Amino acid sequence: MRIVQKYGGSSLKSVELIQMVAERVHHAVHDGGHELVVVVSAMGDTTDELLERAAGLDGANSPENLDFLMMTGEMQSAALMAMALSRLGTPARALTGAQAGIQTNEDYGKARIQHVDVTMVESLLAQNITPVVTGFQGISPRGFYTTLGRGGSDLTAIALASALKADSCEIYSDVAGVFTADPRVVPQAQALSALSYDEMLELASQGAQVLQTQAVLYARQSGVTVEARSTFEAKPGTRIASVATREDHPVTAVALDTHITKLGLVGVPDRPGVAALACERLAAAGINIDLVFQALSHENYRADIALTVADADRERAVAVCQETLRELGGSDLVVDGEVAKVSAVGAGVRNHVGVAATMFRALADAGINIQMISTSEIKVSCIVARQDANRALNQVHDAFGLDNLS
Amino acid sequence: MRIVQKYGGSSLKSVELIQMVAERVHHAVHDGGHELVVVVSAMGDTTDELLERAAGLDGANSPENLDFLMMTGEMQSAALMAMALSRLGTPARALTGAQAGIQTNEDYGKARIQHVDVTMVESLLAQNITPVVTGFQGISPRGFYTTLGRGGSDLTAIALASALKADSCEIYSDVAGVFTADPRVVPQAQALSALSYDEMLELASQGAQVLQTQAVLYARQSGVTVEARSTFEAKPGTRIASVATREDHPVTAVALDTHITKLGLVGVPDRPGVAALACERLAAAGINIDLVFQALSHENYRADIALTVADADRERAVAVCQETLRELGGSDLVVDGEVAKVSAVGAGVRNHVGVAATMFRALADAGINIQMISTSEIKVSCIVARQDANRALNQVHDAFGLDNLS
Repeated sequence: MRIVQKYGGSSLKSVELIQMVAERVHHAVHDGGHELVVVVSAMGDTTDELLERAAGLDGANSPENLDFLMMTGEMQSAALMAMALSRLGTPARALTGAQAGIQTNEDYGKARIQHVDVTMVESLLAQNITPVVTGFQGISPRGFYTTLGRGGSDLTAIALASALKADSCEIYSDVAGVFTADPRVVPQAQALSALSYDEMLELASQGAQVLQTQAVLYARQSGVTVEARSTFEAKPGTRIASVATREDHPVTAVALDTHITKLGLVGVPDRPGVAALACERLAAAGINIDLVFQALSHENYRADIALTVADADRERAVAVCQETLRELGGSDLVVDGEVAKVSAVGAGVRNHVGVAATMFRALADAGINIQMISTSEIKVSCIVARQDANRALNQVHDAFGLDNLS
Repeated sequence: MRIVQKYGGSSLKSVELIQMVAERVHHAVHDGGHELVVVVSAMGDTTDELLERAAGLDGANSPENLDFLMMTGEMQSAALMAMALSRLGTPARALTGAQAGIQTNEDYGKARIQHVDVTMVESLLAQNITPVVTGFQGISPRGFYTTLGRGGSDLTAIALASALKADSCEIYSDVAGVFTADPRVVPQAQALSALSYDEMLELASQGAQVLQTQAVLYARQSGVTVEARSTFEAKPGTRIASVATREDHPVTAVALDTHITKLGLVGVPDRPGVAALACERLAAAGINIDLVFQALSHENYRADIALTVADADRERAVAVCQETLRELGGSDLVVDGEVAKVSAVGAGVRNHVGVAATMFRALADAGINIQMISTSEIKVSCIVARQDANRALNQVHDAFGLDNLS
C-alpha cells in the first residue's frame, strides 16, 4: 500500500518523540512492506517561538519574509525525522514543500495550493527512499516560498495523497480521532469510527480542532479518505470519507463554541434590506457573521437585529455596527460576550424530522434558555448563556443517544 | 555602486545586533544610493545548537539531511534581517542559496560552487528590493539543498559579487580586518590596509581565521576585491586584491599554528622513495601533511623522517605511520604534540634575500631552538617548542619591523 502519514507538532515535541514516530514509520516500511510518504509539522512550540522573534521586527508587515522564517520550523523536524529513519535502516530524505511540488499562489501566510507536482517524491519512492515532507508550505510560480496558514500541514498531506493516488492518508495527533463531543466537556464522549466530509466540515467550523477546514474541503473535492488517529495509541481512529448516514443516529456529534459575541442592533427601521445592509458592511470589513436574526417590531415600525461574530472580531464588529446604526437611525447597540453556541451535527439531520425539536426539548428540560437558533441541512445550532454552555452540551449529547454508541 | 556585504554570525548574535546591521545597510541604500546585496551567516551559536541536535540522531551518517537541517540557521537570520530592513523603509527579501542561484555539486557538507545564476537577485535589484541571501548553501542539479562547509558564507558573498559584477565585496566580522599577527598573542600587531590573495591564502592556511581558504581562492580566480571589515568599528579594514609588494617590508604578517603534531619515523631505510611512501600513505588516508623533513643517516644506511600533521588528524596519522614503519622495518615512532609553527608571510619573500636568515637569527637571539624549517615563494615556517611559541611570534614580528608599520 502507498500511505501518506502526517504527524502534528504535539507528536514531534522532542527528539525522543521523533524517534518514536520514526520507529512507527520504519515498521510500516520495513515490516509492513508499505510505501510511505511522511508529512511533518514543526516541533512543539517552534512556530510560536519564531512568531515571537518576528514580532520584535514587525514581521507581520513583511509577510513574504515571515513565511520564509516560518518554514524553517517544519524543515528542522523533517531533517531530524529523516535522520532518525535513516539510522533505523529506512533511507529517508527531507524535502521542502517546494521540492515536494506543492505549488501555490502568492497569498503569503494563507496561500492556496494550485498544483502538485510529485516528480521528486515519485523518484525517491522508486529508489526506496522515504520522503519526509515539510507540511504547511509551498512555492509560488515566481519561485518564492509560501505558507498555507496555520494547520496547513493536514492540507499538504491530503494534497500529496491525492496527487500520489495514495491508498490511505493518516493524520496523527495527540487525539484518538473525532469524538461525539469534546471529551474535556462531555466525559461520556466517544470516538467515532467514521463520519462524512460534510459532518467534519461542520464540526471543524464549530470548533473541533482535529482537522483544518481547508484540508477537509480539499479531501472532499479530491475524494481522499482521511484517517484521524492518535500517535500514542494503537486504536484505529476515525475515517473521514463519503460515508452513508447511519440510520440509528441522525446526529453524529455535538460541538461547543464559546468564542463568540452577540451583537444586538436595537430599534432599526423595519423595512426590507436593513439586515442585509448590516451583514454587507461586516462582510466588507472581512468579518464573518455566524448567526443572524431579525425580530419583528413592537411599535413605530422599528425592529431589532441580532447577530454573532467571533470574539476575535468583536472590537472591529462593534465599530462597524455603530457606524451602521448611526446611518440607519437605530437607537442602541447591545454587546453580549457571555454567550456560547451549542451545535448538533449529523448527515441524518436533513432526513429526520424532529431533530431540532429533540434539541430544543432537551435544553428546555434542563431549564436552559435559547437566545437564537440556526439550522442547516446537517446542523442545528442554539445560542445559550455561556454559563449554561457545558451543561447544555452534555444535555444535547445525551438526548441524541451519543452517550451509548454501540 | 553595487556592493555585496556579508555579515558573520558574531555580527548577528541577537535581534538587537540584527537591527544595528540593518541600519548600516539601510544607510548605504537610502543615503548612499548604493545597490546592496546582503549575505548572512546563522545567528551566533545556532549552527552549533543544530549540530548538537543532529548528533543525537547520528546526523553525520545522513549528510543530505544534515545539510537540510543546517540551512535553516541562515534562513532564520536572513528572514529577520529582511524584516528589520523592511521596517526601516528599505524593502528587502530573504532568499535561500538555491533562490540566489548558487548551484553546486552534490558533495554534502562541503559542496563546490559550479555555477551562479543571479536571475532572481537581479530581478529584485531592478525593483529596488534588497536581496538578503543565506550564506553557506546552494542547490544541486537534481534540486537537493547543499552546504558549502563551515565558513562558506564568505564564499557565497564572493561568488555573488563576481556573478553580479559588484564594485565591492565587504566581509564583516568582529575583527577589524587582517593583522600583522594575532593581536591576542602580539600586542603590537597592527591592521593591514592591504594584502595580496596569495598572502591571504598563506595566512588563512596558517591559522588566521579572517577568511576561509576556498573563499580566497575563488576571489583570486574571479578577480573580486575583498574588503575585510569590522561590524562594530567605522575603520576602513583590509583590502585583499592583486596588490604589488611593498618594497619596505618583505614580510606582511606573521602567523602561529599551535594545533600541530610532529611525528618522527626513526631508523627507516635510507633509500629513495621512503619519505614519498610515508607521504603517499598519509595522503591516501585523507591526512594533510604540512612539513616533512628527512634527516641523513648516521649509521647502517638508516634515516629519520619527521613530518607534521594537524592535531585533529593525530590519531589516524599515528596508525598510518606505525603501519608504514612496520612495512619499512623502521625502529621507532616518536609522537610530539608539544610543538608549534611560526610563519612569516609576504609577497616580498621571493624577491628579498635574507628573509629566512633574519627569521633564524631572531629566534636564535631569543634562545629558541628551530626543530624543522620549510620555505615557499612567499613564506618561511619554523617548528619550535610549543612553550616558546608566543615568544617566538613576538620576536619574529619585531624582527621584520611589523611593530612599527608606517
